[in-house]
Parts: sequence; C-alpha cells; structure tokens
Amino acid sequence: MEAMERTTLIGEQTSGSEQPMTLALLRNVPVFRDVDERTLHGLAAIATLVVVPENTVLCQQGIQADRLLVLIDGQVALENTTPSGASAVVEVVRTGGHLMLSAVLSGLPGLMSARTVTAAKLVGLEAEGLRSLLHREVSLAAALLRAEAVEFGAMVRQVCDLKLRTTAQRLGCYLLALTEETKANTVSLRLPFDKRLLAARLGCRQENLSRAFAALRRMGVETHGARVILHDIASLRDYSAPDGDVEIDAI
Amino acid sequence: MEAMERTTLIGEQTSGSEQPMTLALLRNVPVFRDVDERTLHGLAAIATLVVVPENTVLCQQGIQADRLLVLIDGQVALENTTPSGASAVVEVVRTGGHLMLSAVLSGLPGLMSARTVTAAKLVGLEAEGLRSLLHREVSLAAALLRAEAVEFGAMVRQVCDLKLRTTAQRLGCYLLALTEETKANTVSLRLPFDKRLLAARLGCRQENLSRAFAALRRMGVETHGARVILHDIASLRDYSAPDGDVEIDAI
Repeated sequence: MEAMERTTLIGEQTSGSEQPMTLALLRNVPVFRDVDERTLHGLAAIATLVVVPENTVLCQQGIQADRLLVLIDGQVALENTTPSGASAVVEVVRTGGHLMLSAVLSGLPGLMSARTVTAAKLVGLEAEGLRSLLHREVSLAAALLRAEAVEFGAMVRQVCDLKLRTTAQRLGCYLLALTEETKANTVSLRLPFDKRLLAARLGCRQENLSRAFAALRRMGVETHGARVILHDIASLRDYSAPDGDVEIDAI
Repeated sequence: MEAMERTTLIGEQTSGSEQPMTLALLRNVPVFRDVDERTLHGLAAIATLVVVPENTVLCQQGIQADRLLVLIDGQVALENTTPSGASAVVEVVRTGGHLMLSAVLSGLPGLMSARTVTAAKLVGLEAEGLRSLLHREVSLAAALLRAEAVEFGAMVRQVCDLKLRTTAQRLGCYLLALTEETKANTVSLRLPFDKRLLAARLGCRQENLSRAFAALRRMGVETHGARVILHDIASLRDYSAPDGDVEIDAI
C-alpha cells in the first residue's frame, strides 16, 4: 500500500487563486448542485486536484481530516479497523461521491480510513477554508447539511439492512440498486468492484457471498465473473424487499 | 399505540415568547453545551414542552419532521420499517439525547419513526425557526454540525459492529458501554430497557440474545432480570473488543 505522502507529491496539482479546471469539476459534482456561482469560486480557491494510483491511503482513521475529498473519477473504500485488528468496509464511494464530510465539518477525528480501489482523481477542499466559507455562504451550509443527512441516511439503511435481511437479500438489494432499469424485467450489469470487496461491503465472508449468489439463482440471477444478468427483476425485488428509495451509493 | 395528535393535546405546553423553564432545560442539554446565551434565548422562543406517556408515536417514518426533539427525560426507540413490514430498532435514545436532527436540518422525510419506550418529557424546537436561527447564529450551526457528525459516527459504529462482531460480542460491547467504571474489574448495572427491545437494538432474535447472555457467562457476566453484574470487566473487554471510544448512546 503506498503512502499518501509519496503519491500526492506525484499526483497532486495545486490550484492557483481560481483554477478554471477545478471550478468546472466542482460545478458538476452532485453535492454542490445548488451552490451559487460566488460560492463555487470560493471553493475553487481552496481546492487542490489529487490524482493517485490504486491502493493509496487518502486518510487514516483516528486522524483529524484536513480536507474534504470529492471523487471526480474512481472508487474509494471506507474502512474501519477495530482495536483487535479486524477491518470492515463501511462503504465504497463511487464517482461523484465525497468522503470525510462529517469529520471535516465537526473537526472530530475520522472514524474511517479511505483507500482507493482504482486509480482515482479527486478534488480536495481544505478543511479550515471550507468551514470559514460555510459560515459566510448560506447556500453552502444548506448543501452540506443536506449531504450530511444523506450520508446519515445511507448508514441508517445499512444498519437496518444488517439487522433485518439475510446475506442473499442484502446482495439482492445491492444488485437492484446498481440498475436504473425501471420497466424491463431483465437487465445486464457489471459489478463495480471485485467479489472480495463486495463481500466486505455486504458484511459477510467470501464463501457466504458465493452461497448468496447461488441462492439468488432461483430468482433469475446469473453471474459470469463481474458480469451479472438479472433475468427476473420482479422476482428478485419480491425476495429482497429493497427500501423504497435505495441510495446505497449516495455517500 | 396512542397517536401523537391526542397525546400532545394532553401533554403539550406551549412556550411564551421566552419560557424560563424551557430555557433552563435547554441550557442543560449536551448538544447545546457550547451555544451562547443569546442563541439559547432564541431557541427557547421556538420551544414547546412535550410530556407524553409510554408507547406514543412522536414522528412517523416518511413524513417530514416539523421539529427537533430533545429528550429531557425518558427513552425513545427509533424504528425503521421495510416495505415488507419487517421492523428494526435502529437506536434507543436516552435522556439528554435528541431525535430527528438530520431530518429537520435537511428537510428530507425522516427515515425512522420515533416511539416512546417510557413516559417521556421532551422539548420540541420548531423546524423552520431552527433553520433560520441556524443561519444567524454561528455557535448553533457549529453545535448542530458536530451533533450530526456524532450521530453519523454512532451509525458507522453500528455498521462495523454488525459486520464484524458476533451477537455475544455486540452484547458485551453494549454492556461495557453502559458502565463508566474504569478502575474496578467488577460492576453492577441495570439494563435500561427490556430484553425484547435489547434484542431488536442488537439486531438479533430474542432466543439469540439468551444464547449470547449464556455465552458471556464464561466472561463473568451474571444476570438477574434487568440487573447485570460484570464480574470480570477485563475478560469481557478482551472477548468483545469494543471500539476505543464507544458512544452508542450519543444520539
């Protein structure tokens, strides 16, 4: 695993007082959708572009986060390690998501480490500057409060998922959330990451994930490596009972 | 289960422009610890005292929350019900905690219903007034962003707990979090609510909770109804491997 110190020196590109490219990137990020133009310029002024390879540690659990990271391209796993050394993948953030929001806003030490699953491009927003901007710009405060609420909601959904559903049902919900197909009963999709990480994200051992895939065969789920075909979405939905509005990747 | 409409009519006491008793109550609530005096007066002006019996539904899942509720005395269960009708207890809020924070701040529909486990006394802070106060008073914004981060952290801990620990370990962590004993190796404590609710909070069936208590006997855990004696905290800690700073009731 490469250390952040080295990779950021390689991949990082500092912003000028207002880097036009960073501004364009921020404008397209969902969390800043309703932020006004003046505030976007304020954000660009405290922004840094970060380009890092796979398996780079971006933040360490227990350390105060020094910036909010917005994921422009790639995937980042958020992991929590217990004192005994066991490690759980809490979430896998995908393109358009962000990380370390509540740590940055609260100033509390982060609860999770962040590690890139793929090569990734991010925009870092310096924590101190962000907090001071937040107190001046109402549209930013509203956007970030809403983003925190969505993150909280995603965690609440996972808690309920883990308390109420079997591994096969959780896998079914996960697969259903990967597709935006609303009309047809069949869809072909690609798992966004490998099965080892998928098992960790769902909170099960790899052998249980294989068993869960086998159990879903009756509901028309066919797998070929990372490619998955859902032959009977209605039946999978009945079996897995997903929430009304699943937003598992809303973080 | 009594409906809120009726019970609030019975128990509710509206505030005057600045009710001295409400002000005193708010001053002692942990979430407002660092809020300045002027803001506390602003909060008291939008506050309502709510006194309700056991088993009262305070908020419904899927409905936009019209007020933040601060729990002055009692216990409130936060529950989420899936479309199939299965219901999970996400958290049990205790005296000094609060509920519906992220729903109120974001204006999004609440993900959980809140139901009193005991008779309860709460202060309600009207949502619209709270949001407008938040934009004027920096100390309040800071306090609530921090509170949201703590809530988020509690959910992250639960996700990790459910992914990494057995039911017996989760129960062990829960019991350890109930005691503030740091020096002695023995402590006697009282379960804050009944075992049916405890099982739901831990995400297991009641028979598994009984098995978990039986498994913890080897680690010196003795139970007599709601009374629990931990005879060997060190051994229970080794077995359960709690997080560094457990704040399961921080919500």
